[in-house]
Amino acid sequence: MVDIAKRFSHNPILHPRDVKPSIDGLVVECLLNPGAFTFQGKTYLLLRVAERPESKEGYASALSIDPNQASGLKVLHFAKNDPVVDLSDPRSIVHKGKTYLTTLSHLRLASSEDGIHFTVDEKPTLLGEGHQEAYGIEDCRVTQVGSCYYLTYTAVGEDGYGVGMISTEDWQHFTRHGMILPPPNKDCTLFAEKIGDKYYALHRPTLGDGGLGGNYIWIAESPDQLHWGNHTCIARSRPGKWDSARVGAGAAPTRTSEGWLEIYHGATEDNRYCLGALLLDLNDPTKVIARSEDPIMEPTTDYEINGFFGSVIFTNGVVENGDAITVYYGASDLVVCGATFSIKEILDTLR
Amino acid sequence: MVDIAKRFSHNPILHPRDVKPSIDGLVVECLLNPGAFTFQGKTYLLLRVAERPESKEGYASALSIDPNQASGLKVLHFAKNDPVVDLSDPRSIVHKGKTYLTTLSHLRLASSEDGIHFTVDEKPTLLGEGHQEAYGIEDCRVTQVGSCYYLTYTAVGEDGYGVGMISTEDWQHFTRHGMILPPPNKDCTLFAEKIGDKYYALHRPTLGDGGLGGNYIWIAESPDQLHWGNHTCIARSRPGKWDSARVGAGAAPTRTSEGWLEIYHGATEDNRYCLGALLLDLNDPTKVIARSEDPIMEPTTDYEINGFFGSVIFTNGVVENGDAITVYYGASDLVVCGATFSIKEILDTLR
Repeated sequence: MVDIAKRFSHNPILHPRDVKPSIDGLVVECLLNPGAFTFQGKTYLLLRVAERPESKEGYASALSIDPNQASGLKVLHFAKNDPVVDLSDPRSIVHKGKTYLTTLSHLRLASSEDGIHFTVDEKPTLLGEGHQEAYGIEDCRVTQVGSCYYLTYTAVGEDGYGVGMISTEDWQHFTRHGMILPPPNKDCTLFAEKIGDKYYALHRPTLGDGGLGGNYIWIAESPDQLHWGNHTCIARSRPGKWDSARVGAGAAPTRTSEGWLEIYHGATEDNRYCLGALLLDLNDPTKVIARSEDPIMEPTTDYEINGFFGSVIFTNGVVENGDAITVYYGASDLVVCGATFSIKEILDTLR
Repeated sequence: MVDIAKRFSHNPILHPRDVKPSIDGLVVECLLNPGAFTFQGKTYLLLRVAERPESKEGYASALSIDPNQASGLKVLHFAKNDPVVDLSDPRSIVHKGKTYLTTLSHLRLASSEDGIHFTVDEKPTLLGEGHQEAYGIEDCRVTQVGSCYYLTYTAVGEDGYGVGMISTEDWQHFTRHGMILPPPNKDCTLFAEKIGDKYYALHRPTLGDGGLGGNYIWIAESPDQLHWGNHTCIARSRPGKWDSARVGAGAAPTRTSEGWLEIYHGATEDNRYCLGALLLDLNDPTKVIARSEDPIMEPTTDYEINGFFGSVIFTNGVVENGDAITVYYGASDLVVCGATFSIKEILDTLR
């Protein structure tokens, strides 16, 4: 046990009951994996909010994106005894060949003066848009590059899940850049600055049919953050260890004197999610200098072990302040929590 | 049956026996899926040559890329009764945790004065290079853009298979551009010209763990052909049809008066591979104007039905000449064949 996280004393800091449903008739089922950033002196989280319709006796209910509604959302009810309704998968409803989801994720801002006590916006900040995001948008990283914030998130649609990108300068007006990495891919974060004359991103292709490769962390280069090439794997899952089944990047890497420090998640075949660190060369981030042998944080508290999906710690949002790095994380796919680390202490574990 | 291909009368035009092994001790097992292009008045194929070591009694033999050998290749023999050798998968040998392949593909040029009779080079033109191509390079598309030829191929390595790119102007000197699309991805072809101010490519992400999406044809944009973004699905597999399980682009689309004509492959769950056509908008190739309801070519001859892997027609190389388009194709994963189509006749099937 080498958990070196200092958890916030009043974790969890946000619970589904703290979040108002997007429209009447919905229930906020889970809060998940927030992006984090500072803007105009405040700390912000960009929460993933998973909602479902309230139960209705005799009906199976689904939530769908619908640009024709003022709210952008629509609830559908299907009679359970209708022979053309397929309910065999609890996550979805298939009706006349079309698939609807029972829960749907959007992104919503929460703001704080102190980085600990957050107020959640009353409405969604960003909903999925178009068929590539028809099943929602999830797990958004927020990377500030100059005055612009780049949002990279999992875009989920009928054709698979890939990485979508949106940018904003003022958090009022948003520019959509489409899918920057094709399916199956997620866990993408941009670096906050150019290295040499190139931008870099970490991402996580998913193991495809055929079984070659795995759920590994890759790095890619770009001239403009919109178009990506020269993809290389930098971290595989490691059989027998805490990150044996899959690994994925968290938030934008932190520049330290010893290299780019990336706090990433690793999971076992049993889906126990812990956090570890990768240290990448400052001038060539395709080179891995060091990697955690043991997790720097693992599910130990009640709220990390018991929840919607237990024993999960997942981060995609950090805020830096000198030697302190605050990690915001989703715990057991239900609540949002915070913990601080000393960068020096993390680097010490990597020696 | 709407097969409108005019097959070459002396198909197959190339057989494994026509190809000299790269080094002594190897057997050319299969010829597969050639790219095709013209250069200095000749027609060229860039063959995928799959080789394996000659059998050796009591040993399992593997072929590996080795830059320390003059040939770039190395044969390894593992005693079958060695307890640390795992032979459970006939395609590979696992020895002390490292995987070796029993067959390995490289790319090799064949040239012709008439487009029918080809002479195959004595040595490989391109071998896989580095760990991303340690398991070979396959199914290369060749797209001429001005005086430069861009090669997009399946790069197969331990971290999965993605799309590699190499460019050349003279077919003597080659520039490697790394992996332009991350795993799991294959069947990538560039368009031969810019549309507006962007380059375009078709590609084929593979269905990942989780089951969302499928083996569909996607299109992407690029400012420079090296970095890709704005990915969109343009053609799904179609349940119950000839292309029910997977689809993938062939060679660079042909510009016609009615749109970009792409001859693609589709396969059923039984792995029967046929060819069909997609017609894409000339000014916005993300728009599909028409698609073959039935194949324009399907495995019917003996050499298409019987071979290494039967009932397979797969093309990634075409040569255009007025209304005629010559399709070079791999038949039953064993031999290389040719057929001509009338572009007008293909377009007629799409009305």
